[in-house]
Amino acid sequence: MRATLIHGTHDIRVSADVPDPRLRDDTDAIVRVVRSCICGSDLWPYNSAADSAEGERIGHEFLGVVEEVGSGVRDTRKGQLVVAPFMWADNTCDFCARGLQTSCRHGGGWGSDGTDGGQGEAVRVPFADGTLVPMPGEPDDALLASMLTLSDVFATGHHAAVSAQMQRGDTVAVIGDGAVGLSAVLAANRLGAERIILLGRHTDRTDLGREFGATDVVAERGDEGIERVRELTGGDGVHAALECVGFVEAVRTGIEITRDGGLVGRVGVSQYTDVPLGVGSFMRNVGIRGGVAPARAYIEELLPDVLEGRIEPGRVFDRTIGLDEVPEGYRAMNDREALKVLIKP
Amino acid sequence: MRATLIHGTHDIRVSADVPDPRLRDDTDAIVRVVRSCICGSDLWPYNSAADSAEGERIGHEFLGVVEEVGSGVRDTRKGQLVVAPFMWADNTCDFCARGLQTSCRHGGGWGSDGTDGGQGEAVRVPFADGTLVPMPGEPDDALLASMLTLSDVFATGHHAAVSAQMQRGDTVAVIGDGAVGLSAVLAANRLGAERIILLGRHTDRTDLGREFGATDVVAERGDEGIERVRELTGGDGVHAALECVGFVEAVRTGIEITRDGGLVGRVGVSQYTDVPLGVGSFMRNVGIRGGVAPARAYIEELLPDVLEGRIEPGRVFDRTIGLDEVPEGYRAMNDREALKVLIKP
Repeated sequence: MRATLIHGTHDIRVSADVPDPRLRDDTDAIVRVVRSCICGSDLWPYNSAADSAEGERIGHEFLGVVEEVGSGVRDTRKGQLVVAPFMWADNTCDFCARGLQTSCRHGGGWGSDGTDGGQGEAVRVPFADGTLVPMPGEPDDALLASMLTLSDVFATGHHAAVSAQMQRGDTVAVIGDGAVGLSAVLAANRLGAERIILLGRHTDRTDLGREFGATDVVAERGDEGIERVRELTGGDGVHAALECVGFVEAVRTGIEITRDGGLVGRVGVSQYTDVPLGVGSFMRNVGIRGGVAPARAYIEELLPDVLEGRIEPGRVFDRTIGLDEVPEGYRAMNDREALKVLIKP
Repeated sequence: MRATLIHGTHDIRVSADVPDPRLRDDTDAIVRVVRSCICGSDLWPYNSAADSAEGERIGHEFLGVVEEVGSGVRDTRKGQLVVAPFMWADNTCDFCARGLQTSCRHGGGWGSDGTDGGQGEAVRVPFADGTLVPMPGEPDDALLASMLTLSDVFATGHHAAVSAQMQRGDTVAVIGDGAVGLSAVLAANRLGAERIILLGRHTDRTDLGREFGATDVVAERGDEGIERVRELTGGDGVHAALECVGFVEAVRTGIEITRDGGLVGRVGVSQYTDVPLGVGSFMRNVGIRGGVAPARAYIEELLPDVLEGRIEPGRVFDRTIGLDEVPEGYRAMNDREALKVLIKP
């Protein structure tokens, strides 16, 4: 089959010679990919991967149709349209039971441990019953993009709000106007934030942020941005800061703009080793939670609003490509020409 | 009156020439101190204060009898035995309403902003109705020590557990065997922790920790201590780590021994500027909350267990002195001869 491989920094290739996936364990399923996409976190290896002659599988967001199931699969059926969260999990262990499927005792990430990446024609899915979430009804082309965001990007924005323990009526800040940041705006709006301050400086992106529910946009960065958010909140800061970048400066901004007693919800993949959480935040009881999003825990909760059209998280996709164009898709996202790229294999 | 002054590093003096407190605002009360004590956090200035000829007031934990009230005081009455939390607060502002009296819009700390320190004969108490909590019945000498711990040390241990969002049945680690650490053990036990691992290496202290409910004691520090806690928890770590030291190494230990999805509750006054919360904790969704404890928010909840003898947090006091012996009390605590020193002025 055709699938995407990363051979090194800025070296993405689509190979037609990747072995077709086959059932290996009896709890596996094979899913034919209908939609996939490129993630902001794929750009980290895109900009740093070591050279590899054989290449590494890549891509971790996809939805598709079940083509085959193992003998131990009970709930997942051939022909079903399913969303795969960006990590697979048995969904039965104690971590899964607590809603932390990213820490599943038997789980893992796409493209590792002998699994397929999501940016290809088909994927072997371990623990199919635990991992996959069936979508009701017939595939509706108009909904596919928004359904796909449940695999990662919208679930990740939601996780930022959940981690920050945002409450209905809160004033919330979202740091970062990438696809995750915009998803966090939408998630905070869905959860009843009264005011949403989006920190970002790309007008085309913050405009979508406003449509997703941002009430204020702060283009300033660093200390100026912190000062601006404080001004907007009567000096107090926000109840919850959703950090959707991954650089320590964004975390610092989050800590500084969070009001006493509040939390920073971090979902930007950490490119830092330490966070500035010294005596200032100690005296103010400001904390930080979050991390990699257990998308699997959220899909059922978020799905009805997608199906009924109350939210359209799929609007973060501003470009659609075929599988063969994936290298160009990476380039466009890396050069900020595209916000998020949808793939129709 | 007599009161304690700090004139510099290791230079604590008791002066007989401190002005008697007088009502200043109509919401003030004057409290005659019945019991006070020395806090581990008093040792930070004890070991670092700049020279001061006139000296600075010190001490922030006390209980006493109301001697006089201003015309605007409605609930606090002359003759009442009252506990003062270690920061004063109006208890009516929005932060107070959320239980964060340490961030009160009109509050402050004892010894600052023209208030008295707690290590003296009497104290002017701002916002008497908001700050003070009356103790029912007549002063019972046997209960005074435990009542006094509600002012800070036991409330701070409790705050560690609350901040870490500890749940009944959890496995909890407490880092530090000082008076706050032992209080955190007692607090976690009171809140229903199933297992409490105390990290400390002073046997006399960890012995009291066992009486307070610690089920395991880990004397090793650093990576060895981390490894030992992991062994004790089947490799998973604890649901909640209560950090009661204030050094970054203790925070790091807390992060490393907390199981995926869990929280570090920090109450050790931060002597650090950054905490090691990089990609490892990000992938495991480990966070950190806490800070200075809003003791005022907890006193009513904790008091019944003290009054009815179900808990005896006052056992952290292992030495009792008069006001004139306060300099010696500081020395004894600083040299670890005493765990926590009670003062009868």
